[in-house]
Amino acid sequence: MDNRPIGMFDSGVGGITVFKEVIETMPNESMIYIGDTASFPYGSKSKETIIDLTKRRIETLIQKDVKLIVIACGTATSQALEEVQKMFDIPIIGIIKPTIKYLKKNNIKDIGIVATSGTIRSNGWEKEIMKEIPDAKVQNKACPLLAPMAEEGWTENEIAKLSVHEYMKDIKNIEALVLGCTHYPLFKASFLEEVGEDTKVINTGEMVSLAVKEYIEENNIKNDCKVKPTYSIYLTDTECNFLNVAKQLIKDEEIIKQIKKI
Amino acid sequence: MDNRPIGMFDSGVGGITVFKEVIETMPNESMIYIGDTASFPYGSKSKETIIDLTKRRIETLIQKDVKLIVIACGTATSQALEEVQKMFDIPIIGIIKPTIKYLKKNNIKDIGIVATSGTIRSNGWEKEIMKEIPDAKVQNKACPLLAPMAEEGWTENEIAKLSVHEYMKDIKNIEALVLGCTHYPLFKASFLEEVGEDTKVINTGEMVSLAVKEYIEENNIKNDCKVKPTYSIYLTDTECNFLNVAKQLIKDEEIIKQIKKI
Repeated sequence: MDNRPIGMFDSGVGGITVFKEVIETMPNESMIYIGDTASFPYGSKSKETIIDLTKRRIETLIQKDVKLIVIACGTATSQALEEVQKMFDIPIIGIIKPTIKYLKKNNIKDIGIVATSGTIRSNGWEKEIMKEIPDAKVQNKACPLLAPMAEEGWTENEIAKLSVHEYMKDIKNIEALVLGCTHYPLFKASFLEEVGEDTKVINTGEMVSLAVKEYIEENNIKNDCKVKPTYSIYLTDTECNFLNVAKQLIKDEEIIKQIKKI
Repeated sequence: MDNRPIGMFDSGVGGITVFKEVIETMPNESMIYIGDTASFPYGSKSKETIIDLTKRRIETLIQKDVKLIVIACGTATSQALEEVQKMFDIPIIGIIKPTIKYLKKNNIKDIGIVATSGTIRSNGWEKEIMKEIPDAKVQNKACPLLAPMAEEGWTENEIAKLSVHEYMKDIKNIEALVLGCTHYPLFKASFLEEVGEDTKVINTGEMVSLAVKEYIEENNIKNDCKVKPTYSIYLTDTECNFLNVAKQLIKDEEIIKQIKKI
């Protein structure tokens, strides 16, 4: 048993889609979340910068004594996960592998990936998919405006819908669409409308929460349930719309009230 | 007489709206432009970071032996101009003062300002306006998505129009609207539609080009016209849509062909 919290970070509010899935899947676990809003967006930054930012967020989480770290960010997973796994002893889980496990298990071959420019440029998703599913056909599309739009709180208005439509127009005949940036589940309704009901739209947060649960159970580091779980959310810069977007997702005033600047 | 080029920089492609005005107003002057696309966007960064980026871009331009520097960026002007003017001997012109000179001359009091979050938060425009026009009434609006949208090349589609409409809905009864970010003239048609024909929409690039002309004439540092002017454009990162947007603005293949990575 291990009563320490799970640590998690993202460049902004997007990772809250993962946070939400994890607390729903494991309601007894405590969580510490860092939204690196001062450095947002990660998606347009160089690999070196993303590795450096990821390293610093992990150091902060280790100082806060977490038992496990989730990189709730597609860009940081695709560009920095391998490097930081070499640097630190703590277990670190990204959003790519748990998702690919699901694709493989369900025998999905025709796959669309939408993500930030940095993630698409790094080819991180496609490389990992081809390792596990060598006959997969992958269509990639960078959607650089969606994460900034989510941070602005524009996720369900006409502008969001039209933007998703514009980005999706060249992606055809897929069995599954991977939302490769953790901000994108905020646009899930628009993506569903674009792909039609025969295509599975994958929220990587769901896949990550299952991987975290499995890891915690296998390694016997569950919370012993003698203390009520706590949730803390830290932001590196509070001049942003984080609160409004997070509220829509978390819908729990007690958690929202705890948000503070690091 | 001084045949050295004019130096200019912006966080991305926005400053090209100023570049265009300057080469049209002073067709005999050579120009060096830096688009700091690796650090884009400036608009959401802290004051310290913007001062540091501005300082570094000015150092590069000085190394390239320019005679005068134009900060073709609203965020860098509002947050860093004063500081860098103290650090360097070279004349540095920003986009705020030339615009306020025009507002004052035309006795304009009811003023709307649209700009990035950083610029609006710094209150740079309003402070300068109140110094020169103490009875002005200023309405401010941060439009954080417009500069990223311009870098994406979405300036005339339905998404751009709806976004401008969304940002402008609370601004009422103004005589002039200042486009306080150099990306925004790319959305001029949409802004004009929002404010109606009685309101002047101000492209700061026009005002800056007049200020540069005045400075060059008063200080007798014009190009002597014995050599054909040259134009160089450098980008700090080429993984971007700069070229497509710049082409729409400059429409001169000879200039476009010269764009290179610094």
